[in-house]
Amino acid sequence: MPDGIYYADYLQLDKILGAQLPESDKTAHPAHDEMLFIIIHQSYELWFKQIIHEMTWVRDSFLNPINDNSPAMQVAVHRLRRVTTILSLAVKQIDVMETMTPLDFLDFRDLLRPASGFQSIQFKIVEAMLGLRMEDRHAGNYYISQLRAADIQLIQKAEKEKSLLELVNAWLERMPFFEQPENWNAHQPVSNPMEHVFWKEYRETYEQSLVREEKENIRFFDSVFFQRDENEKRKLSPKACRSALFIMLYRDYPLLQLPYQLLNILLDIDELLSTWRYRHVNMVQRMIGTRVGTGGSSGKNYLRAALDKHYVFSEIAELTSFLIERQHLPTLTSELEQRLGFVKN
Amino acid sequence: MPDGIYYADYLQLDKILGAQLPESDKTAHPAHDEMLFIIIHQSYELWFKQIIHEMTWVRDSFLNPINDNSPAMQVAVHRLRRVTTILSLAVKQIDVMETMTPLDFLDFRDLLRPASGFQSIQFKIVEAMLGLRMEDRHAGNYYISQLRAADIQLIQKAEKEKSLLELVNAWLERMPFFEQPENWNAHQPVSNPMEHVFWKEYRETYEQSLVREEKENIRFFDSVFFQRDENEKRKLSPKACRSALFIMLYRDYPLLQLPYQLLNILLDIDELLSTWRYRHVNMVQRMIGTRVGTGGSSGKNYLRAALDKHYVFSEIAELTSFLIERQHLPTLTSELEQRLGFVKN
Amino acid sequence: MPDGIYYADYLQLDKILGAQLPESDKTAHPAHDEMLFIIIHQSYELWFKQIIHEMTWVRDSFLNPINDNSPAMQVAVHRLRRVTTILSLAVKQIDVMETMTPLDFLDFRDLLRPASGFQSIQFKIVEAMLGLRMEDRHAGNYYISQLRAADIQLIQKAEKEKSLLELVNAWLERMPFFEQPENWNAHQPVSNPMEHVFWKEYRETYEQSLVREEKENIRFFDSVFFQRDENEKRKLSPKACRSALFIMLYRDYPLLQLPYQLLNILLDIDELLSTWRYRHVNMVQRMIGTRVGTGGSSGKNYLRAALDKHYVFSEIAELTSFLIERQHLPTLTSELEQRLGFVKN
Amino acid sequence: MPDGIYYADYLQLDKILGAQLPESDKTAHPAHDEMLFIIIHQSYELWFKQIIHEMTWVRDSFLNPINDNSPAMQVAVHRLRRVTTILSLAVKQIDVMETMTPLDFLDFRDLLRPASGFQSIQFKIVEAMLGLRMEDRHAGNYYISQLRAADIQLIQKAEKEKSLLELVNAWLERMPFFEQPENWNAHQPVSNPMEHVFWKEYRETYEQSLVREEKENIRFFDSVFFQRDENEKRKLSPKACRSALFIMLYRDYPLLQLPYQLLNILLDIDELLSTWRYRHVNMVQRMIGTRVGTGGSSGKNYLRAALDKHYVFSEIAELTSFLIERQHLPTLTSELEQRLGFVKN
Repeated sequence: MPDGIYYADYLQLDKILGAQLPESDKTAHPAHDEMLFIIIHQSYELWFKQIIHEMTWVRDSFLNPINDNSPAMQVAVHRLRRVTTILSLAVKQIDVMETMTPLDFLDFRDLLRPASGFQSIQFKIVEAMLGLRMEDRHAGNYYISQLRAADIQLIQKAEKEKSLLELVNAWLERMPFFEQPENWNAHQPVSNPMEHVFWKEYRETYEQSLVREEKENIRFFDSVFFQRDENEKRKLSPKACRSALFIMLYRDYPLLQLPYQLLNILLDIDELLSTWRYRHVNMVQRMIGTRVGTGGSSGKNYLRAALDKHYVFSEIAELTSFLIERQHLPTLTSELEQRLGFVKN
Repeated sequence: MPDGIYYADYLQLDKILGAQLPESDKTAHPAHDEMLFIIIHQSYELWFKQIIHEMTWVRDSFLNPINDNSPAMQVAVHRLRRVTTILSLAVKQIDVMETMTPLDFLDFRDLLRPASGFQSIQFKIVEAMLGLRMEDRHAGNYYISQLRAADIQLIQKAEKEKSLLELVNAWLERMPFFEQPENWNAHQPVSNPMEHVFWKEYRETYEQSLVREEKENIRFFDSVFFQRDENEKRKLSPKACRSALFIMLYRDYPLLQLPYQLLNILLDIDELLSTWRYRHVNMVQRMIGTRVGTGGSSGKNYLRAALDKHYVFSEIAELTSFLIERQHLPTLTSELEQRLGFVKN
Repeated sequence: MPDGIYYADYLQLDKILGAQLPESDKTAHPAHDEMLFIIIHQSYELWFKQIIHEMTWVRDSFLNPINDNSPAMQVAVHRLRRVTTILSLAVKQIDVMETMTPLDFLDFRDLLRPASGFQSIQFKIVEAMLGLRMEDRHAGNYYISQLRAADIQLIQKAEKEKSLLELVNAWLERMPFFEQPENWNAHQPVSNPMEHVFWKEYRETYEQSLVREEKENIRFFDSVFFQRDENEKRKLSPKACRSALFIMLYRDYPLLQLPYQLLNILLDIDELLSTWRYRHVNMVQRMIGTRVGTGGSSGKNYLRAALDKHYVFSEIAELTSFLIERQHLPTLTSELEQRLGFVKN
Repeated sequence: MPDGIYYADYLQLDKILGAQLPESDKTAHPAHDEMLFIIIHQSYELWFKQIIHEMTWVRDSFLNPINDNSPAMQVAVHRLRRVTTILSLAVKQIDVMETMTPLDFLDFRDLLRPASGFQSIQFKIVEAMLGLRMEDRHAGNYYISQLRAADIQLIQKAEKEKSLLELVNAWLERMPFFEQPENWNAHQPVSNPMEHVFWKEYRETYEQSLVREEKENIRFFDSVFFQRDENEKRKLSPKACRSALFIMLYRDYPLLQLPYQLLNILLDIDELLSTWRYRHVNMVQRMIGTRVGTGGSSGKNYLRAALDKHYVFSEIAELTSFLIERQHLPTLTSELEQRLGFVKN
């Protein structure tokens, strides 16, 4: 056998394959399927570690303001896309869990109390890194009551750092399409004339495009992009929303291609997490019905409530409400086209 | 070229490939992605036709009472499992739709009004064949206002026939485990002593297994399996519920293997339809935001409401609430074991 | 926080999440993607452990001759079907690996030499448990030269136990359709008249169904089912092949439903392993082209050669060559129908 | 009911859903599964139409030389990525076909002779548009003998147009990284000094990176990138290969991001088509074993032979053999970095 690195050592297989200790093996009734239950959850934790590895890199690279179309931006998009591929696998992994029938689960379920998937610290860190705050979580206090102090601190530490949502907001605000961003609104034009002209035209076209039942949307438009009501708590600033919409509208210009991909991938991440939660709800429901989960609460109700509340990038998603038909888009000046990287041959 | 059947004729490709007539091609602005929109929907309709083909066969075979463990039962399970494979593909097909961006959709969206996916007659027939009735549908009247009279009749015709749900109820009621089914309840024992003894023991064990927060479940137990409140509208009779639970508990006995697979596949169908609707909701939301759908209503809200209401076999799913640990199951008599096809060597 | 079991302890997350030690972290050039490489392989090893867990149970239950249609048989089918679900996930997991580009892999590839996926002991044990023997492996000696003595012993131990292939052969031979199995062949009829009559009729019908180019198939038929050439090494005996074909033909009878599912699942396992190897080949090819793998040999060529040689249940798969149309099947006597569990109403 | 477009009319559902005419329905033995067989193939043909729709647009846009980083390039990448999503669905669709057992297929198989999937004109057009020529097809003459004259002409017409492979070659040759491309080789330096210096350094580093068993690769290197042997028939010119490798090496620079995505997607298309063929082979093998296909030849052998021969972009894939570690890459001059769109802050 050749010298050097050996597969089993490199992968630390003694640890990995020695970490399955079914509780039911300590009883008179070993439950065959407990192994599956352990391995599925360990596999999920491995993937969560990988997702955190990718997101940490992305977050760190966004802390640095100089990355609009740089190599780093390309790498960030690539690594977030990898996160979506991993989440897609995580969704499919539920198929494996579903091969465990309710009766098979009952064979060891009571032995696990009060442990529960709610206690996955890594998953909470993933959510926090994206931008979910404890106060926005469904049943945040309940969580805390189930966790060790050290683990709560880990989550709180993650929450204190800049989230991807905040960094994306800052990055969108920096976008220099129309030189200086301004506090424009329908009545007080922004001081940058180019930007003013553009949005004025856009707003008019948008208003015309609304059918009768949608007329109210124009107020929503003004609130999102210009005059924000003081009481309204939104995560993205008007300036950031304008940039995001601009990117969606002119995504084909060289300078906007990566930014557009980035925005889309963030929505993909939200959607995949949501699909994962949804399939998870359905599985829990089939598995335990109206019984109380091992963590002591109704697993199904928790997960269902989280479905609607845990979207992080919903304010980006809802910008589609403000799109207009491509053929009616304001024409860009050649100067602006050039700034977006377009060179006429 | 040899004589005989030719691929293109056999598949009627002139019709299939000649049926894409984009509305935007009639305008000055042909929209590239309208072709995709048409083809995705046509592909869905082909699969719906196949699902109806399978379900029609299954329904017809269940109209005949003699199929508990017969070859026909095996075929029914096989064909319903095929329906799940098709639905699984239908879920994945949303990936293709999601390659169409909101802006690309806007290029032709207004041209399609008021046509809408709500008008898919075949999908409604699938739902009706499973057991969804117009009065249980979210926004049933709205539907009707959008459909041609002839199409409404097609759906109503499907609703008048025995649904899979009703046929499964009747089949479960016929199950001859304990000879004659009886109107047993906690106070008035069923006349069949074997059945009485079994369920009495089961009920006691179940009651003991409940943790504090679940104590109420025993009333739910009685209501589901024995004394049904008059006002309560449930789809499955107490007798059918007892049979279904019995199948879940003793599924490994030869006679119960196929019945168990059947029950599981029905839940898979519900779950896949639900996953399909859920991904559909998310997609519509990303596509049109808060705009009004081509059919004139909020696509997203409709679909989200349907999510919870359109489960057909939820009463089977919730039986998992009444499972007890395998090691505490009442022991079956040898006589009963034999009736379930088990021969000791 | 409540007392009792805690999620992180139960899953031994300190071990699982502490087992990633990238080699490149010890150099001046940490490679971001090495974490992914490690985690993917660890996840595969977790799943291999689960597959071995399931297959060990199935093998043990088949060592016991009394399981034709017993509860144990139902459980065996269920657990092998779970193996297919896991393999299906393993195939999809390649999507994640493919997010690592060749250049990213180069950043740490040389640091891993001579470690290689060829050294996965668990995967070789899975293959051995199914029925692959070292002498049938592509490049068996090469393997051995790359492994530690203790690991070679583990594989050899697995090879010495009864494989699933052998156990399935024995189980098929035990099938009691026509009372006693006999050494029937085309010229020397079996002594059991019922079996003799059946296969004589079947052989004639099959011969008539062959089109001109297929006429040779009848010799193949005789060799597979009756008179085996001494030099021919086949894994399944003629008696076992007759049982397997009989099961395929009359699969809808109650007694044959599970056996048919079992045979099909074995083919699914072969096919999924093969798809996994195939996608793996393609990935390696894209990753390293004509370069030499970290294990010192051409990864691509090895994997491609294994593609054709490593089918374990190919003799079952090829039985489809001997099917005839259902409408021409020999009619079974009522006695035989009854033995197959069919009761006319 | 509102006026205007109606779902069923828009989708031409009378044609789509009226195009299933099972041959077995004309006999005394209607075969239930023939409907599935027809619908699967019709669904494939719908998707092939969509793929042709996308590829036609991409090809037309590449006929125009001005698209290196233009909006059109972005759209081309997006639409080819959609093709991969569709192919991914096409692979999964085989799951549905596999729910048809061999015996079920036999019920109508003979009625279809000599029709066969070999006669799918659209699939051959897809292959031709990518760059597969009749002379490179496995068994090209056989094909022609099975097709109507009009259909052969359709394929030949597709083959006469510029293929994606040729257009990509031309596009790669146009890449202006080092001003003028030259006939450089190891002994006769290219006249452009910058390009000369770059490749000289690259070649030396590559040579040093080769381990003992790979030393021959340096000749392969020279042949691929510089001095092409006259007899050697390769699809991509040395200049195009140099550009493609350069893109892979410096893919993170703004100007190379889309080109890199494009190259990768072409490999994805090859790989997905290959996975589709591979699963198709396995399915045919399980379905008909060694019997002759409905088209009169051994389906399995044809498909297996096609597996290796029908890669269109293999010369791009094999460029990974020539990558070197990122840390040893030649440093680019600031001038070149600027030309690649990189602006230092």
